[in-house]
Amino acid sequence: MENRQVVIESLPEDKLSVNNFTLRSDPVPDPGQGEILCRTLALTVGAGQRAGLQGSAGYAGAPKAGVVMGGTGVCRVERSNVDDVAEGSLVVCQSGWQDYSVHQASAVRGVDSQDDPAHHLGVYGTNGLTAYFGLFDVGEPQPGQTVVVSAAAGSVGHLVGQMAGIAGCRTVGVAGGDEKCRLLTENLGFDAAVNYRSPDYRHAFREACEGGIDIYFDNTGGEILGSALRRMNRGGRIVCCGVVSQYDTSNPAPGPRGVPGLLINRRARMEGFLVFDYTERFGEAIDRMRGWVNAGRLEPLSDEFHGLEEAPRAFVDLLAGGNVGTRIVRVAD
Amino acid sequence: MENRQVVIESLPEDKLSVNNFTLRSDPVPDPGQGEILCRTLALTVGAGQRAGLQGSAGYAGAPKAGVVMGGTGVCRVERSNVDDVAEGSLVVCQSGWQDYSVHQASAVRGVDSQDDPAHHLGVYGTNGLTAYFGLFDVGEPQPGQTVVVSAAAGSVGHLVGQMAGIAGCRTVGVAGGDEKCRLLTENLGFDAAVNYRSPDYRHAFREACEGGIDIYFDNTGGEILGSALRRMNRGGRIVCCGVVSQYDTSNPAPGPRGVPGLLINRRARMEGFLVFDYTERFGEAIDRMRGWVNAGRLEPLSDEFHGLEEAPRAFVDLLAGGNVGTRIVRVAD
Repeated sequence: MENRQVVIESLPEDKLSVNNFTLRSDPVPDPGQGEILCRTLALTVGAGQRAGLQGSAGYAGAPKAGVVMGGTGVCRVERSNVDDVAEGSLVVCQSGWQDYSVHQASAVRGVDSQDDPAHHLGVYGTNGLTAYFGLFDVGEPQPGQTVVVSAAAGSVGHLVGQMAGIAGCRTVGVAGGDEKCRLLTENLGFDAAVNYRSPDYRHAFREACEGGIDIYFDNTGGEILGSALRRMNRGGRIVCCGVVSQYDTSNPAPGPRGVPGLLINRRARMEGFLVFDYTERFGEAIDRMRGWVNAGRLEPLSDEFHGLEEAPRAFVDLLAGGNVGTRIVRVAD
Repeated sequence: MENRQVVIESLPEDKLSVNNFTLRSDPVPDPGQGEILCRTLALTVGAGQRAGLQGSAGYAGAPKAGVVMGGTGVCRVERSNVDDVAEGSLVVCQSGWQDYSVHQASAVRGVDSQDDPAHHLGVYGTNGLTAYFGLFDVGEPQPGQTVVVSAAAGSVGHLVGQMAGIAGCRTVGVAGGDEKCRLLTENLGFDAAVNYRSPDYRHAFREACEGGIDIYFDNTGGEILGSALRRMNRGGRIVCCGVVSQYDTSNPAPGPRGVPGLLINRRARMEGFLVFDYTERFGEAIDRMRGWVNAGRLEPLSDEFHGLEEAPRAFVDLLAGGNVGTRIVRVAD
């Protein structure tokens, strides 16, 4: 039995390419005392992982050439040397991009094995939790307010917009492409959607945000952040969640004009957060989201690649804006 | 009797010059029903006023050529057609740069005539109130935290640092020039001060903020904001008060690199505010600051020019960093 692994062959100098990765095989590791052996069933690929590959102390850590690419997976416990972790149960852990991984019990989180494993990487995983805590705790939405979200068809964004709607807000999504925009308004209940790749973008954005923006949930930074800053209402909040416009480059752009001048003018707040600061409240958030999913009010989307060897392609395509919802790589059944 | 007025002759195209202003004389105006005639005793000149002269909707309003330069003054009531405003009493109002002005009673704020009029433009005026609400309400200092303030020898900054010390914080001032830095540490109780004009600035700043920054009170934007962003502690707050580095130009620089990336990484918050949102609490703030001044714990500094005709020079010099404390123009006794 072998353990296939996707290894970082080189750090990208500019745009990430599938050639930055290579596939190798190692023996399946043995779990020691207090450890468990996990079989990866599915991985999620997120834009934030690109930040780590910039080689600096990005928030995804600092991967380097020669090591297995990091990442979150949902796994079946294959062997357990821990009393309260049953073989055959499902866990979420930092599996990395490989078939098998060994963990301490404290490093895995048991999840409901009734659900599709992919849900634990999407709405009930880091993406959903990020959307939930960023929107409700940092953004503090009030009914009737206007919430704008960038990368709105993405893994986090498509959930943010739907939850803002549940909170009684008017929701505007910014996404790349008319097809994504149609999906947002026709299938996911967004009140408006704007294609940032359209030559008409500025005008369309202004029109969609005519009464100003109360909460801007920023997944992108860059130019979209700039347009949102200029439309913020007094006392508005900018939730800084991700900077996808700046990840896939070795030379990040300067910050947006208007910081800090417009923040003063509008008495506005920009606040960054990381979902890992909220671990104690994950259960509460998952329960609420599960209620909305079961009631048909929140529709989690995922798009899938099949096979571990496809993970690099799934990642490169994601950075080019190819995904709708949470990008999943199915590794095993 | 004539009313001398400093009038905007032209909007500055790049750096402000005294030639952007001219002096003219008008007859002293007559107060109508419900109005009062004010004699300007002293004016304050602040860097924020330069923003208004950029011709856009800056937060100081949008002055234009041909009108009297706006500004806050402390005045003696010369004639009153209002029952509860006594002739001879002191008020603070938007006098503009002129000898006499007429106001509705609701547009003036009566102040204690025992104090030096200049104090009502400094510590008990907009500068002190800005320092107070920005530090305590937006910054939320806790004992033992490190507070960094830019333009630290300026009208707002020198009060921020002293009040942060009163709140039990370690205080670091950033100022232009070694002399200002000495004043901060030797006379005003700052724990450290860094000269941003020194070639050694980056190193000295890093050293002064070795344990990281919990609160950065930003009066400047630009490069100093950038250095502070890189040193913020987790959960830190950046109080956006002013952008003096960007006022005296027609082409403001882009925002700092690291916005929003570093805000996410550090779970940090940037928040803008305007003191005018706190008018209902001015009395409470002035009472507390008066207590500290009387106890010798808070030392308000001002530096003074004499004569209305000197106001343009006082302003241009201020923008070049010439002032220590609140810049006052004495107009009459």
